[in-house]
Amino acid sequence: MSILENMEGPDELERLNYADVDILCQDVRDMITDVVFENGGHLASSLGAVELTVSILRNFDPYSDRIVFDVGHQTYSYKILTDRRDRFHSVRSLGGISGFPKRSESPCDHFDVGHSSTSLSAALGYAKARDLLKKNHEVVAIIGDGSIINGMAFEALNHLKEADTKVIFVLNDNDMAISPRIGGAANHFAHLSANPYYRKLKKAIKECCKGIPKGETIEHILGKAKDQIKSLVKPENIFDSLDIDYWGPFDGHSVEEMDLIFSLARKFDKSVLIHLITQKGRGLEMAEREPSVYHGVSSAVSRLKKASKSWSQAVADEIGDLAERDPSVVALTPAMKEGSKLNGFAESFPDRFFDVGIAEEHMVTMAAGMAAGGLKPVAFIYSTFLQRAMDQMTLDVCLQNLPVLFAIDRAGMVGEDGETHQGLFDIGWCRMIPNLVVQAPRDLVDLKAMIAEAMNRDGPTAIRYPRGAVVTSLCREGSKSVQGLKAEILYPSLGEVTYMGIGKTVNFLAQARDEAIRRLCPSPGLVDLRTIAPLDYETLDPILLRGGTVVTAEDGYLDGGIGEAIAARSAELNADVSIHRMGVKKAFLPHGTVEDQWDICDMTLEKAVSFCGEKTERKTG
Amino acid sequence: MSILENMEGPDELERLNYADVDILCQDVRDMITDVVFENGGHLASSLGAVELTVSILRNFDPYSDRIVFDVGHQTYSYKILTDRRDRFHSVRSLGGISGFPKRSESPCDHFDVGHSSTSLSAALGYAKARDLLKKNHEVVAIIGDGSIINGMAFEALNHLKEADTKVIFVLNDNDMAISPRIGGAANHFAHLSANPYYRKLKKAIKECCKGIPKGETIEHILGKAKDQIKSLVKPENIFDSLDIDYWGPFDGHSVEEMDLIFSLARKFDKSVLIHLITQKGRGLEMAEREPSVYHGVSSAVSRLKKASKSWSQAVADEIGDLAERDPSVVALTPAMKEGSKLNGFAESFPDRFFDVGIAEEHMVTMAAGMAAGGLKPVAFIYSTFLQRAMDQMTLDVCLQNLPVLFAIDRAGMVGEDGETHQGLFDIGWCRMIPNLVVQAPRDLVDLKAMIAEAMNRDGPTAIRYPRGAVVTSLCREGSKSVQGLKAEILYPSLGEVTYMGIGKTVNFLAQARDEAIRRLCPSPGLVDLRTIAPLDYETLDPILLRGGTVVTAEDGYLDGGIGEAIAARSAELNADVSIHRMGVKKAFLPHGTVEDQWDICDMTLEKAVSFCGEKTERKTG
Repeated sequence: MSILENMEGPDELERLNYADVDILCQDVRDMITDVVFENGGHLASSLGAVELTVSILRNFDPYSDRIVFDVGHQTYSYKILTDRRDRFHSVRSLGGISGFPKRSESPCDHFDVGHSSTSLSAALGYAKARDLLKKNHEVVAIIGDGSIINGMAFEALNHLKEADTKVIFVLNDNDMAISPRIGGAANHFAHLSANPYYRKLKKAIKECCKGIPKGETIEHILGKAKDQIKSLVKPENIFDSLDIDYWGPFDGHSVEEMDLIFSLARKFDKSVLIHLITQKGRGLEMAEREPSVYHGVSSAVSRLKKASKSWSQAVADEIGDLAERDPSVVALTPAMKEGSKLNGFAESFPDRFFDVGIAEEHMVTMAAGMAAGGLKPVAFIYSTFLQRAMDQMTLDVCLQNLPVLFAIDRAGMVGEDGETHQGLFDIGWCRMIPNLVVQAPRDLVDLKAMIAEAMNRDGPTAIRYPRGAVVTSLCREGSKSVQGLKAEILYPSLGEVTYMGIGKTVNFLAQARDEAIRRLCPSPGLVDLRTIAPLDYETLDPILLRGGTVVTAEDGYLDGGIGEAIAARSAELNADVSIHRMGVKKAFLPHGTVEDQWDICDMTLEKAVSFCGEKTERKTG
Repeated sequence: MSILENMEGPDELERLNYADVDILCQDVRDMITDVVFENGGHLASSLGAVELTVSILRNFDPYSDRIVFDVGHQTYSYKILTDRRDRFHSVRSLGGISGFPKRSESPCDHFDVGHSSTSLSAALGYAKARDLLKKNHEVVAIIGDGSIINGMAFEALNHLKEADTKVIFVLNDNDMAISPRIGGAANHFAHLSANPYYRKLKKAIKECCKGIPKGETIEHILGKAKDQIKSLVKPENIFDSLDIDYWGPFDGHSVEEMDLIFSLARKFDKSVLIHLITQKGRGLEMAEREPSVYHGVSSAVSRLKKASKSWSQAVADEIGDLAERDPSVVALTPAMKEGSKLNGFAESFPDRFFDVGIAEEHMVTMAAGMAAGGLKPVAFIYSTFLQRAMDQMTLDVCLQNLPVLFAIDRAGMVGEDGETHQGLFDIGWCRMIPNLVVQAPRDLVDLKAMIAEAMNRDGPTAIRYPRGAVVTSLCREGSKSVQGLKAEILYPSLGEVTYMGIGKTVNFLAQARDEAIRRLCPSPGLVDLRTIAPLDYETLDPILLRGGTVVTAEDGYLDGGIGEAIAARSAELNADVSIHRMGVKKAFLPHGTVEDQWDICDMTLEKAVSFCGEKTERKTG
């Protein structure tokens, strides 16, 4: 690792010859692979973007130019090569560097990201700021071919001409989003890659460069190449339809080729979209072979835990079973087939499986149309990505009271992906939506019951469940579940305190209850709320009116959360009860393990038990 | 109006000859114009789509085929010609028919809509439902050229090929969204309109039809035309890039031409996008001349009230004044320049005004990029449309704590546009977002103070304000405002009751207080909360701890609202206070006047005063 180890800063990159560049790229790949197999993270995208990143850093200044990455799955080499080589081993761990770009982490990161397709809009914003404030720097956005088909990227592309500024858009085309890419645009990119015009363009540019000594080349090349570009590029692609200058495709693993193109783009007086072909997982054989599998790699620790079945798998299995019996059941995913464990469903029911690509808005409204047409659609979506389709969920599904089931995965704290991926808003946002039933199961028994009821409900349902291993059975005898939208009193209170939980926090509160009993507190009550909306007042009101202390716990924000709803109900009843709410305080919750994050939120057994102690003391004091 | 008046149902349309069709279209236009000038509504779009609707109804069965309109601004003639002619005079009034498509209103309406760009996704859903359930009907989506540039429409277009079904997409291109259309795609459509290939296609189809007797034409035409279409249409447009069959453009005011094309499309074995050129405001001279102005027309009653300045105008003026002094202030709008009263700003600062088209997601992230680049962006957006960009607001603006000001217009009840346009979620959704300051002014004095502070804040702010006339000054002496994020005690309580309001409800509660005093209740307190997030506990805690009754009022949903937040705080403090929350109960709130909607929500003076009476009685009893 001599070259990488000895580098002082990114400005040294441009002085390397191409032989050394090759060595450096291998060094970077090795470091990424080593760390990701230990910490977990986004492997295949990062491996595919090493040369691209090196060339970007040879041609742009990460301190003065604005380099905006899309999604950020591909930024590991950027982090290593700018100013975070020595901290890279800490990636995604508590207190360590983030797995995504982060302005607070480095002056070289120019836009925080985690969700797809924001880079073009952010870059346009930066460019207009530069123009209006009379600054002088380049703005570069690097976007993948999976991200560019999302609607908001299209909105930015459509706005580019009108915005009348200069940005350099780099399309990193590895023919994959997270899963293989979807849609007409994908075919179109493939067509472009095979188009002889662009081959000619490439050849012409290469011709221009020959025999011109390094150092004085750019102006000469530019003079020659500009005319050639103009005469060669025919208006036959989607970018030309939008009046965007398109150059490509070029080899995204040839630093030499990219150096030339980027230096031309710098000198070019207009915005340009540069199309690079890369290979996801490049340089690691197993990742090249199965890029979807190696898109995200679990940490060494969590790989050991993998024996147990995940909530995602349990939900996918259950929907698969129902689909077996009911031909109207269909499944939709926005490019998360692997994450949502839908491979089996897709194989069993290819006609009833819809991966729409990274297109959450379209997916939700398409599900609404399907339901209006008589199908029973299940929209599999991570809590964090549902934020992209709140309006569609509200107006296209719930206003029409259509029977769409939202399977909200990764609800609550998600761990290492950090701030941009936490599922902390869904409780508060969803419970406001009229007609929508919102539930969370504490175990597999309830999950099955809730799904079965949702599929027979004449209206929309959202079922949220966390990242991690499914709980087979909790606080129940046998395999029966309560019916409908009822809350369930698991244990009545023998003292002052009643715990009220929902989903994952029921397990947590059950442990707190055990601990409280061990400490000789009068046995606290435990209620599984089960249904976030509508709240089951019939069961809850008597508990509130009984007085004493109620402790609510939820893995979502306290503001707008279920604890507030219960407090408001208690005020409405004029109940003389003291309500303590456990949950996530208003802040973005950083990366770390899920356990770290629960600790940060003060969601500890100690804290939960303390409410028993307190009350008991006051009573006996 | 003989033809229209005598029509029994839409099936009669196809039997009319073209001379009678012309008369009918004029009848429909007259009815629309008469009613809209009385009730208010979307005029120019509706006038532009009369012939299009007639031809659709001559070629498709609104009871068995699925006809999905986008946005719904253009559906008045559809309503008149299907089954709502006799109720059309009631459009947009309480209990009357909706201004938008509504499944509960008619079996001819197939998808509820109000927000842009959902039709293609919904149609794809309907089409897959048809295929899988082995039904047999056509699915037609009608989308405007302003809506098709929104990201989610692009997502659906991109998915069309992969979805492997048959839908007929009709692009109603009037070269306008609400304001003139934005972006590269707009130029592209203009280019298509002038393209000789399509002229040739049109001519070829017309040739095919000549001399073939009506009744047996279709098969002949189809046989002839299909080959011609294939040989003529060159892959040079954005739809071909997405592998979508494109036919057009055709004259959207020639029923004869459209009849031919739609009948061909029915017989065609694949999905097709049909491009029609129409004129917004067609047939009404002033609307043709100024389609933006006549996009939405106010009701006769509200035109009389127009003397007073609107909140929208007040905010636009204030930002304009600040922009005068600070060159870093910029304004953004998603195609709502007129609605947000930004014409003046756009004229004064053309370089600093950004109408991005119907592209809320892009707009918010572009604003984030601008702020990161050193500008002070103000994103003007209606509450209901902000629902489209909640994720971008959260992750692109607030996570990075960027100083973007969201000017949230039409917050609260909006009146005649009804369910899809109510601004009832923003309080609950926004107050959950970390870093975001959320405020609502009761009058112009506070509006100015809040905006001034927001522009100097090193982080994001949302200021919400309602539809209607701005209140110049309320409950204050002179023109000073309290500073910062403080709540303001306008009157201390002399009895049991304290009213707590925010924005528009402060005015309402002030009236309730006057009324209570008239009825000899002990003078209730009145607090203007001013800041929704973070709540000013310093001011509120002593009031809660004092006990008695607190009545909160907000023009948003009670679930997740500010009343819940206050109730939760009171529970946290263990305060012995009874809290009554006034606001919108969990249901979609139908169209009618704003006053109707307040009544429906039981937000009446009588109700507000009743809390005083109650408490007073108990005290004295």
